[in-house]
Amino acid sequence: VTGASGFIGSRACGGLAELGYEVHAVGRRPSGKDLSHWHCADLLEDDRRRRLVAEVAPSHLLHLAWYAEPGAFWTAPENTEWVAATIRLAQEFAAAGGRRAVFAGTCAEYDWSVAGRCSEADTPLRPATLYGVCKDATRRVVERVGVDAAWGRVFFLYGPGEDPRRLVASVARSLVAGEQAATSHGRQLRDFLHVDDVADAFVRLVDSDVTGAVNVGSGEGVPILRVVELLAEAAGRPDLLDVGALPARPDDPDELVADVGRLRDELGWRPTRDLAEGLAETVAWWRERSGSE
Amino acid sequence: VTGASGFIGSRACGGLAELGYEVHAVGRRPSGKDLSHWHCADLLEDDRRRRLVAEVAPSHLLHLAWYAEPGAFWTAPENTEWVAATIRLAQEFAAAGGRRAVFAGTCAEYDWSVAGRCSEADTPLRPATLYGVCKDATRRVVERVGVDAAWGRVFFLYGPGEDPRRLVASVARSLVAGEQAATSHGRQLRDFLHVDDVADAFVRLVDSDVTGAVNVGSGEGVPILRVVELLAEAAGRPDLLDVGALPARPDDPDELVADVGRLRDELGWRPTRDLAEGLAETVAWWRERSGSE
Repeated sequence: VTGASGFIGSRACGGLAELGYEVHAVGRRPSGKDLSHWHCADLLEDDRRRRLVAEVAPSHLLHLAWYAEPGAFWTAPENTEWVAATIRLAQEFAAAGGRRAVFAGTCAEYDWSVAGRCSEADTPLRPATLYGVCKDATRRVVERVGVDAAWGRVFFLYGPGEDPRRLVASVARSLVAGEQAATSHGRQLRDFLHVDDVADAFVRLVDSDVTGAVNVGSGEGVPILRVVELLAEAAGRPDLLDVGALPARPDDPDELVADVGRLRDELGWRPTRDLAEGLAETVAWWRERSGSE
Repeated sequence: VTGASGFIGSRACGGLAELGYEVHAVGRRPSGKDLSHWHCADLLEDDRRRRLVAEVAPSHLLHLAWYAEPGAFWTAPENTEWVAATIRLAQEFAAAGGRRAVFAGTCAEYDWSVAGRCSEADTPLRPATLYGVCKDATRRVVERVGVDAAWGRVFFLYGPGEDPRRLVASVARSLVAGEQAATSHGRQLRDFLHVDDVADAFVRLVDSDVTGAVNVGSGEGVPILRVVELLAEAAGRPDLLDVGALPARPDDPDELVADVGRLRDELGWRPTRDLAEGLAETVAWWRERSGSE
């Protein structure tokens, strides 16, 4: 598992271990967690990555690492570094006898100008951002390196431990701190999935033989306004919401929702939590954290 | 110029020098040619490539190097190595202050099941081969690295010095040697351009400000049968042609011809030779060579 200290990765390691996998977790920094096989490595360093893959010789690969700095990741040149590193990782994995690989893709691979409900088979791929272009180009190549591979396209996610520069975490933290939370009009429909569910879907993908692109989402379009209202209800502070205070981005699509047919029918997977429950849990996490700060 | 000892590259170096460029040529092996700036480097070696780009700090880049072993290149895993190396080269070029880059693409990026006359704007990109997938994915990324870039999609080419495992060279060599030349039915329409013209089109692209994908072809569809007949006429041995002796490949498209609107109208470029003349020159080259063997 690469990106093992990340928002999804830290949870996926546990899920794979529960299924009986001997999990080798890779992160750039030493882990504080109790993981028996932790490898401290920067996968952009070719020699280090090559040695690590040869040494571990994994049967399965869950590649979640990428450049993901909130805000910056959409346009950062580091994305192109990750195209090269991911392709090489896939080849090195195949050369080391790897059987099955799962990669993290993104809903930003789709053409957002026509998006709506995005289907792997039908929605055109026309990424508008460098991030989306790089993920899309990477998929085109790694699908051809000769290992059984799936590509999970992540939609929107949230949950305890999220970077506070991202939407749900930022609003939850403000509400818990008793500060105003400014949002846009919030009418855009988005597909939000709890990070535990996202991680679980990836774990099940690793453990399956489903190949190709698979949307990882809830399948339900919810207005962003509803998401922040649920957070405010959970925090007991609807008075702090300042809806419409921020401008909507001009290129923000009205609707961006996953068609989850493949996830549901081929993988037999469904989310375990509903949105209100997951958001309440997230608010509780921020409250606990603010108490201990 | 990368791939400078190659079929196109060796000619492009001369053309750029004639336009007044200080040409730094890169090849894997020492050159026998009289080039003032020859750099012996394997661009797949990251350290070597990085150092070279930093040292030369080129204003322009013409990147022709790729894995091109006749027959093998369609499916060779080396293609994915070149995706990674090309993306990194493009970034390193941008970081070193590079202003304009031109890359060699391929007509194999197009969807050959609907190909016909291929237009950069309208023909779908759906490469069937690993080679085409890798070129296509590379273009998607290098167009976004922040330098002015054009992507020349090469169709079919021929000329003196071509690898004898390729169609025109193979037939010309057989005819000159007095051996039978077996071909398929030959009814497939293809777009053939003399390698001097291909190299010249790339030189003009480097020296222009045209960006994006540009087909590099003649714009004329000629049956392969006509090509081999012209070779046989030039060799004076029409009796040696064994048309229909080889099966046509089942996935071979009926027509694969470049729409050369961009090349002609935006670049103002036209081929300098007609096909009969270029093929006769090729036969003469093989005759001279067979005499000296």
